[in-house]
Amino acid sequence: MVHEYRTSRRIEFADTDMAGIAHFSRFYVFMEQAEHEFLRSLGFSIHMELDGELISWPRVQASCEFTAAVRFEDEVKIRLFVKRKGSKSMTYGCEFSKDGEAVAVGELTSVCCLCDPGGGVMKGIEIPAVIADKMEQAPPE
Amino acid sequence: MVHEYRTSRRIEFADTDMAGIAHFSRFYVFMEQAEHEFLRSLGFSIHMELDGELISWPRVQASCEFTAAVRFEDEVKIRLFVKRKGSKSMTYGCEFSKDGEAVAVGELTSVCCLCDPGGGVMKGIEIPAVIADKMEQAPPE
Amino acid sequence: MVHEYRTSRRIEFADTDMAGIAHFSRFYVFMEQAEHEFLRSLGFSIHMELDGELISWPRVQASCEFTAAVRFEDEVKIRLFVKRKGSKSMTYGCEFSKDGEAVAVGELTSVCCLCDPGGGVMKGIEIPAVIADKMEQAPPE
Amino acid sequence: MVHEYRTSRRIEFADTDMAGIAHFSRFYVFMEQAEHEFLRSLGFSIHMELDGELISWPRVQASCEFTAAVRFEDEVKIRLFVKRKGSKSMTYGCEFSKDGEAVAVGELTSVCCLCDPGGGVMKGIEIPAVIADKMEQAPPE
Repeated sequence: MVHEYRTSRRIEFADTDMAGIAHFSRFYVFMEQAEHEFLRSLGFSIHMELDGELISWPRVQASCEFTAAVRFEDEVKIRLFVKRKGSKSMTYGCEFSKDGEAVAVGELTSVCCLCDPGGGVMKGIEIPAVIADKMEQAPPE
Repeated sequence: MVHEYRTSRRIEFADTDMAGIAHFSRFYVFMEQAEHEFLRSLGFSIHMELDGELISWPRVQASCEFTAAVRFEDEVKIRLFVKRKGSKSMTYGCEFSKDGEAVAVGELTSVCCLCDPGGGVMKGIEIPAVIADKMEQAPPE
Repeated sequence: MVHEYRTSRRIEFADTDMAGIAHFSRFYVFMEQAEHEFLRSLGFSIHMELDGELISWPRVQASCEFTAAVRFEDEVKIRLFVKRKGSKSMTYGCEFSKDGEAVAVGELTSVCCLCDPGGGVMKGIEIPAVIADKMEQAPPE
Repeated sequence: MVHEYRTSRRIEFADTDMAGIAHFSRFYVFMEQAEHEFLRSLGFSIHMELDGELISWPRVQASCEFTAAVRFEDEVKIRLFVKRKGSKSMTYGCEFSKDGEAVAVGELTSVCCLCDPGGGVMKGIEIPAVIADKMEQAPPE
């Protein structure tokens, strides 16, 4: 059972805005990418077939607090951890730091869903055991 | 004194992802754009000179809850309102709807800051009276 | 028969980069959005059902030359025109200007394709007459 | 003297669109990121101080042809090479492939410029020798 995942990300020119810093909306994309890498590291995908069904994880909420700016070419360290493991959803916490200093803290909740083949309607389901058995809640800090 | 601003936004192809819906990170951009339009509607800009100083509004937090998906070419109505008017920051609420149905609810806090000319260091300041005098907190619902 | 479409676009904060100007990659998105608006103005969509089949227009090439920078809140005028009307593809020219001055010139070629329901494989087809009959090549300048 | 740079890139969920493939506009961002990595590999930056002056490389044209689609989680290999080395500009070619198959071919021209401290006006200059001496045109194929 795993409860956290660490990755990093270099701030690209296209991430920056005219204030000279990474645009705040990029942090939500970075959180999502860390979540996807975490699932991949466990052998799954955020959008995968399982027993002939297409399973996806639409997000139902995401928030982020920003405490310091990051700039072009900065290397941002990302720690994603399982904040709440529900029966149908996962809430991840996400800590962003640069040179050991916290720059942002976020949260993301994804719900396990069945897709129809056209990708259209989605229905929340229990997280399949094969996935749930690999993840556990992180210990309180 | 104004306490809300209404606008709308058509979902573009580039806003969508492989799940066939607008990518969640776009909602943070839409919130920001509504905030900027609101300031513009009052005669200001999110990045403006005032009495020879450059004033900007970096965001310190943003969150959003998603209750329904929106798709390519959907017209999304956006209601931005002043949730909390602080002495140095503004917190906006943001309601997204499609065909009268709520699809997302968000919140965004921006802090009034002085920039140095290079755009580098920023320092929080009291919201200048000329701006503060135009905005008021929205009445509780 | 129509051969051009005019629209405009305000440069948003999220369009800018740390050089203080609209990031060049945004122009390709703007071209695409003008193409989509053009199809919409004729009663079609870039991704539509026609006689029970799903038709889409993947792009096979796009280019753009940049002659002047545009900045936050600039209003950019866009003229899209039919540069070449093929039997299976459309090539659009795209002129961007600000305050009457040209800022960029681009080109985009989209191929008419059949999608399978899952959105997977695509196959080039003749442009259906109902669509082709509404568009004509722009006269040489 | 170096004339090419190789990197790779995993297609992220946020790169995809409702057609289930990487949105074409992302390839221009990928080209730019390869160019920036190339400069970094030589000890430079796309936006750097040199002898007390701020040097940047705005792009004046970029084009791309797309021959095959790439999808979420695909690993795309990127080969950037020096197509034309001018006295004031660099034109890079860019080959994208997946599993050994070409998926796109692009081109990007960047002009060496002096920025004023506010990042405002830019002026084309000769590429400083310290940079030019490290890069050479790729041999014809």
